[in-house]
Amino acid sequence: MMQRLDSRDAGFAASFAALVADTREPDRGVAGQVAAILERVKREGFRAVADLTEKFDRVHLSAGSAEISAAERRAAIARVPADQRAALELAAARIRAFHQAQRPADGSHSDESGIRAGWRWTPVERAGLYVPGGRAAYPSSVLMNAIPAQVAGVDELVMVTPTPGGELNPLVMLAAELAGVERLFRIGGAQAIAALAFGIDPLPKCDMIVGPGNAWVAEAKRQLYGTVGIDMVAGPSEILVIADASARPDWIAADLLSQAEHDPVAQSILITDSATLADAVADWVQKLLPTLSTQEAARESWDDYGAIILIGDMAEAPALANALAAEHVELMLADPQPMFAAIRHAGSIFLGTHTPEPIGDYIGGPNHVLPTGRRARFSGGLGVHNFMKRTTWLDAGEQGFAAVADATATLADAEGLPAHALSVRIRRG
Amino acid sequence: MMQRLDSRDAGFAASFAALVADTREPDRGVAGQVAAILERVKREGFRAVADLTEKFDRVHLSAGSAEISAAERRAAIARVPADQRAALELAAARIRAFHQAQRPADGSHSDESGIRAGWRWTPVERAGLYVPGGRAAYPSSVLMNAIPAQVAGVDELVMVTPTPGGELNPLVMLAAELAGVERLFRIGGAQAIAALAFGIDPLPKCDMIVGPGNAWVAEAKRQLYGTVGIDMVAGPSEILVIADASARPDWIAADLLSQAEHDPVAQSILITDSATLADAVADWVQKLLPTLSTQEAARESWDDYGAIILIGDMAEAPALANALAAEHVELMLADPQPMFAAIRHAGSIFLGTHTPEPIGDYIGGPNHVLPTGRRARFSGGLGVHNFMKRTTWLDAGEQGFAAVADATATLADAEGLPAHALSVRIRRG
Repeated sequence: MMQRLDSRDAGFAASFAALVADTREPDRGVAGQVAAILERVKREGFRAVADLTEKFDRVHLSAGSAEISAAERRAAIARVPADQRAALELAAARIRAFHQAQRPADGSHSDESGIRAGWRWTPVERAGLYVPGGRAAYPSSVLMNAIPAQVAGVDELVMVTPTPGGELNPLVMLAAELAGVERLFRIGGAQAIAALAFGIDPLPKCDMIVGPGNAWVAEAKRQLYGTVGIDMVAGPSEILVIADASARPDWIAADLLSQAEHDPVAQSILITDSATLADAVADWVQKLLPTLSTQEAARESWDDYGAIILIGDMAEAPALANALAAEHVELMLADPQPMFAAIRHAGSIFLGTHTPEPIGDYIGGPNHVLPTGRRARFSGGLGVHNFMKRTTWLDAGEQGFAAVADATATLADAEGLPAHALSVRIRRG
Repeated sequence: MMQRLDSRDAGFAASFAALVADTREPDRGVAGQVAAILERVKREGFRAVADLTEKFDRVHLSAGSAEISAAERRAAIARVPADQRAALELAAARIRAFHQAQRPADGSHSDESGIRAGWRWTPVERAGLYVPGGRAAYPSSVLMNAIPAQVAGVDELVMVTPTPGGELNPLVMLAAELAGVERLFRIGGAQAIAALAFGIDPLPKCDMIVGPGNAWVAEAKRQLYGTVGIDMVAGPSEILVIADASARPDWIAADLLSQAEHDPVAQSILITDSATLADAVADWVQKLLPTLSTQEAARESWDDYGAIILIGDMAEAPALANALAAEHVELMLADPQPMFAAIRHAGSIFLGTHTPEPIGDYIGGPNHVLPTGRRARFSGGLGVHNFMKRTTWLDAGEQGFAAVADATATLADAEGLPAHALSVRIRRG
């Protein structure tokens, strides 16, 4: 059953520490299997990709049929209902506008020495986007992964997605269209990641690979990190709601369940100083659960990983929130600003009663690809800068060179690097 | 012997492709050994750290003696010669000034819908810095890794460094002092990385770990990526010099050797349109080599991985440079600006005849921790933002909520996520 903690209980510190320590990422023992798949794809090329696709997706692939044609894409897109198209177009426009505001700026620095230095951001050339097939084929994830790449100015965006049984998801095809995905391949799993990283013909070699996936896909990205850039190491989703007595318990219950329905290992936590609210939310969760077609996953998540934490004073909340470093934090407070200012570690923060987290999942503007498993302590969500890289530059000039030449040679000598010292001294003549 | 390529030769494309493909990172088979060390440290705690330190560094450690005391630090620092101290202080000041200019800015975005959104950068709480011992104990690396953390506002910076035989490096101790390193431990290797990532008492748990190291250290960081943040996956150093007939061959030779002396697998490449310059540089390398105390590593690097590429026209250079995506690129050109504008993939670019790369290693201002092994195609060097993370936020308000509620519910329904739709609909009453 869902945990209930009270910060005034004797055992609270230990129980809370255990909650923080459990990042719900059991070692599924996939590392060895994934390493074998990567090695096989590298060695055997497309034949290995086709074999594995036949095995896992029951789809027979040739090099000529691996790519989803423009005609297939058009036919699938034509099946999207008008209201879904309008909603997706609104989402794409809003996400694009937010990310355009986020483009990192070039900069420079100079001083009286005469030395000029700076940095310049440039986009990667080609990015690969993994999109899961089946139940977790989310068009919103296509927008969230592809639009930042598009805004960054990436030359070519290549998408891979498994099509178990051969079926294309119309809304996913439309999202790819809206987000400027040039090429699509019907390949999934670790073999798709390998094909993008190594450039297994007909798939082009990508400089970075992003997007959600199952344990095999996530592990393949992790193992290839350094060979290519990746977005992040992702775990199951999570939400933390911080609420005071002014908040509606039914709204909070729905928000908690919106995370829980993603995955049996998702996590939903409520922190409140109101015992009345805590009880009411627990009741509402039970009332709403049976109405959901996703109730099985939602119930399992809530029972196994859900938690309601009662605190004596709202001033205790920031420290707890920072330790949890949750992917999503909702501030259901009469005045969310002081709490917002006090929270340091969070993937994304949703302020006030009318910003339920699903608004951010789809349409608010900020990215929904966010750090999980306490990783918000050291990393942020996906953004335009993930698809760009910063090149620094230095221009000493004769005057600047003269100002620092001796100090440079001194340090090079101290480090035992004579050619470093020589490259300075040889210029002094 | 050093390779000579000519872009007008028939086999050039294949030879150049082979040069690009060889990132000089042989699989040293350390992954299994490192995994075993990480597992052992996690299981046995400090006892494992002490055992491994005794084995590799011949230093007997207790939990009480693992930390280098303030008195030891002071005593070591007192031995730094005055000219070295002055040079290091100048370097620290210049590096700090550049990185202060680089702090990322918070931002926000709003539109007529009434929805407000934005992002906020906050520093990580605690960062760990690995500093190699022995020959590669570079005080400059301490500054380059620690100052960005300090500028970012990291609460506590913890350094680990092996002290084979018990010896402290005075200039490294001074660099730690100048860069605000709070705590120092005499521990190295994969066990030190494990201790920082897991928080093995007396070492505090760090949110991210940065710094150079040998193959074991680099692999430990790679394996722990996701458990903690890391700076990057690093390989051997490299330089690309692009020069025209106006450049001095002796200066270029010294600059090529300044990379080569780092490591037998470092790489130095010259691209030029002048056959005369190409020959002269090759001659100067041979003339300068015997003058270096580091000639053994430098000669091995130059013979095995060095290259001079003759091109028919300088306009060919940018494409070659972008394929090589070198850590360091020197533009030894009469007018470096057009080439600077044309190069997209590089770690750091050094403009003009009086900006030898070692100026950037020590004192120019920009960071010397840079992407190697063609990784400049997807990543940049270390900076202040590596020690910060971006939290996005969203504030819909009642008006904004009303503007996007229907579209959100439509998309949630389309994705088969009823609790997502419910969290919106329940707020409409």
